[in-house]
Amino acid sequence: MSANPFPLNISIILVQPQMGENIGAAARAMKNFSITDLRIVSPRDGWPNEKAKNMSVGALEIIEKAKIYNSVSDSIENLEYVYAASAAPRDMNKNYILSRDLANDIIDYKHVGIMFGRENSGLNNEEISYANKIVTIDTDVNFSSLNIAHAVAVICYELFQGIKQNRVGLSNIQELATHGDLEYFFGHLFNILEQNSFFRTKDKKAYMKLKIRNLFNRIDRLSKQEVQTLRGILTNLTKNK
Amino acid sequence: MSANPFPLNISIILVQPQMGENIGAAARAMKNFSITDLRIVSPRDGWPNEKAKNMSVGALEIIEKAKIYNSVSDSIENLEYVYAASAAPRDMNKNYILSRDLANDIIDYKHVGIMFGRENSGLNNEEISYANKIVTIDTDVNFSSLNIAHAVAVICYELFQGIKQNRVGLSNIQELATHGDLEYFFGHLFNILEQNSFFRTKDKKAYMKLKIRNLFNRIDRLSKQEVQTLRGILTNLTKNK
Repeated sequence: MSANPFPLNISIILVQPQMGENIGAAARAMKNFSITDLRIVSPRDGWPNEKAKNMSVGALEIIEKAKIYNSVSDSIENLEYVYAASAAPRDMNKNYILSRDLANDIIDYKHVGIMFGRENSGLNNEEISYANKIVTIDTDVNFSSLNIAHAVAVICYELFQGIKQNRVGLSNIQELATHGDLEYFFGHLFNILEQNSFFRTKDKKAYMKLKIRNLFNRIDRLSKQEVQTLRGILTNLTKNK
Repeated sequence: MSANPFPLNISIILVQPQMGENIGAAARAMKNFSITDLRIVSPRDGWPNEKAKNMSVGALEIIEKAKIYNSVSDSIENLEYVYAASAAPRDMNKNYILSRDLANDIIDYKHVGIMFGRENSGLNNEEISYANKIVTIDTDVNFSSLNIAHAVAVICYELFQGIKQNRVGLSNIQELATHGDLEYFFGHLFNILEQNSFFRTKDKKAYMKLKIRNLFNRIDRLSKQEVQTLRGILTNLTKNK
């Protein structure tokens, strides 16, 4: 994160991107707006990718330093707050904002991530359940499918406004929980629920996990302390059984 | 302009674009934000261009209806107000705004154009002199060169905010002059100046024309009536010689 002189760190996460050209173009757009941390979950054509390098133009170091992950969960482990870039809120109980309001929304965080889905199908509901909020780029309702690099460009453009604001603001905030902290809690919780036969069928299990993730991820500015409290409650309830 | 249901018309003008892929990607971004009128000045690889078609994805009709011109002047003839998208204001007396303020800036116009330059060198000073104002996308100062399709995407995204506002506002404004009206005046003026040996050398001539264009193009909301007044003054001064 050395290229970012501001206290706000931002990570761009591409989930299963298909074309190397788009990864390269996305990296270039990131650099235009002072964002340098690129994370890629299971790129279709493997990694490293020559086409990604060629399209990145002056942003080659972003491609070379990109981190590769096997799961969404791993890719966001150390982030405090994660947005899923998606055309429209799905049929799930999930907060969303328009990209226009993104800069004001991130101002209280120190490390934020934005997830982008595949070129042809975006992010699926399970992936979205890992995010705290959906961010939607307001488009023509009849033609809302953006090129992925264009979407990254627009979002990074908006984030840049937040980076600039953040340069001045941001004073002694409490230590926020990362997604890893919360995932640790989920692991604990899901384990217990499993033992208690809470999940009737395999289908039901995936669906319920998704609902539970969405529920807890809607809690804004969850602190490390609060996650510890949640884990304490869980431990306590288990003991009393 | 049939796809645009709003009273505000917007044209995107690409000046000597080099790669068909970028023209296609720009068309797709335009359609995402309800902008359909694409004008191209002297595309390097001729027209039609198969790569432009392939990259436009769902926006093929924008490519097929694109209008081709031989000069910047012709391409903006029927527009009321033109912005030159450029990384930073050049060493010329020209107003500029940040892209962030574009939506509020266009609200009084009925037909606006945005010019974008070549991939490798942008717009030159003479081309910029045809615009009323420069619009700058605020970027990292160390890496300000945007991919042209990304620049079109960001600008169209901002314009879309204006289109939405415009949907409600915009009531009986006066009839504004087009660039064609003003060009007619310039033709008249330059002719007279030429006859009067105002331009000492050929170099000086191009430079003075550029300065004069920049001067008059800074007059916001110039009406047809006012251009007629200017032409009347010119005729009058000539007669009295």
